[in-house]
Amino acid sequence: MKLHWSPRSPFVRKVMVAAHELGLADRIDCLRTVVRMTQPNLDLLPDNPLSKIPTLVLADGSVLIDSVVICEYLDSLAGGGILFPPSGPERWQALARHALGNGLLDILILWRNERDKPEQRQSPELHDSFAVKTRTTLDRLEADAADLDATRYGIGHIAIGCCLSYLDFRFADLGWRDGHPLLAGWHESFRARPSARATEAVDA
Amino acid sequence: MKLHWSPRSPFVRKVMVAAHELGLADRIDCLRTVVRMTQPNLDLLPDNPLSKIPTLVLADGSVLIDSVVICEYLDSLAGGGILFPPSGPERWQALARHALGNGLLDILILWRNERDKPEQRQSPELHDSFAVKTRTTLDRLEADAADLDATRYGIGHIAIGCCLSYLDFRFADLGWRDGHPLLAGWHESFRARPSARATEAVDA
Repeated sequence: MKLHWSPRSPFVRKVMVAAHELGLADRIDCLRTVVRMTQPNLDLLPDNPLSKIPTLVLADGSVLIDSVVICEYLDSLAGGGILFPPSGPERWQALARHALGNGLLDILILWRNERDKPEQRQSPELHDSFAVKTRTTLDRLEADAADLDATRYGIGHIAIGCCLSYLDFRFADLGWRDGHPLLAGWHESFRARPSARATEAVDA
Repeated sequence: MKLHWSPRSPFVRKVMVAAHELGLADRIDCLRTVVRMTQPNLDLLPDNPLSKIPTLVLADGSVLIDSVVICEYLDSLAGGGILFPPSGPERWQALARHALGNGLLDILILWRNERDKPEQRQSPELHDSFAVKTRTTLDRLEADAADLDATRYGIGHIAIGCCLSYLDFRFADLGWRDGHPLLAGWHESFRARPSARATEAVDA
């Protein structure tokens, strides 16, 4: 399998954490692929017209896009039902957690793009809106932190862990641990797993 | 079930199309909820700290977010495996199609927000980037249009249909049907279904 990959994309990292958890990392050939919101990557468009990573190209040439779809595909390759509970309340809890971590990542990516614009093009309302949503989501995750510890590690944990690590990587100024001690404690257990240590983002 | 809903959100529409296809529409209480990227909805934040719709609140108070998660939950309520193939190549094809339609919707929402900004805050590079990605994705969908007709109607069809209808609703100036005759023909069959007719977006 060929994965359009970057060492700094938190969505790619989710896939690689899942691959390590599932014992599949060595079956993935990572191809360094740079994407920017302002500039489509012309080499990537034939595989993914949305010009987004991660994009997974299978041996038969078929393509999977969207990080959670790729993660579920990898889960199925490893036998299924490992990182994605197959049905019932456990499945909806895992997918709801994933949606919360992933949705906050979506906000953070937009926020970072906004911060990088020339000042006269930035929108103060957007900054304020992103800040409120980020703080409120962190409060919600703090309330869920004890339960994160108590439930089987899965796609929800991976999304939340990658999201918190991305806050450290690109939004260190926010000091997200302040007021979120249980979440900060849980994040240490995420970071200690071999799958996280093998996929740490680096600013090359 | 209570659904945070708007008549003009294409992501909400996906959920409502799925609900109609599954015969569950009358079990959903729609609560008109307005969200803007620049302004968190304070009434929505307790249910969804990301301030996004659709958000589904279940009878036991638990909350599902992310339109595709809500659609899969509804599918499970109706017995499962109806709009979401349970496993195998059919599942990955359906989820890949969903990701393409949904990913183009994500781009169109951002594009519309960009268009709505005061002119001095708009980014010409972003406009160009969104235009290229939209055109390339439509070309890909055109290549898949015959196969859309040939495969069982599911979540991929719903995402693509809602996306094309959103183009009609908010980007009529793009004339997306030009150069995409097979896709335009398929879209007519989407629009003719009762589930689409019952959920048509209206500019109130």
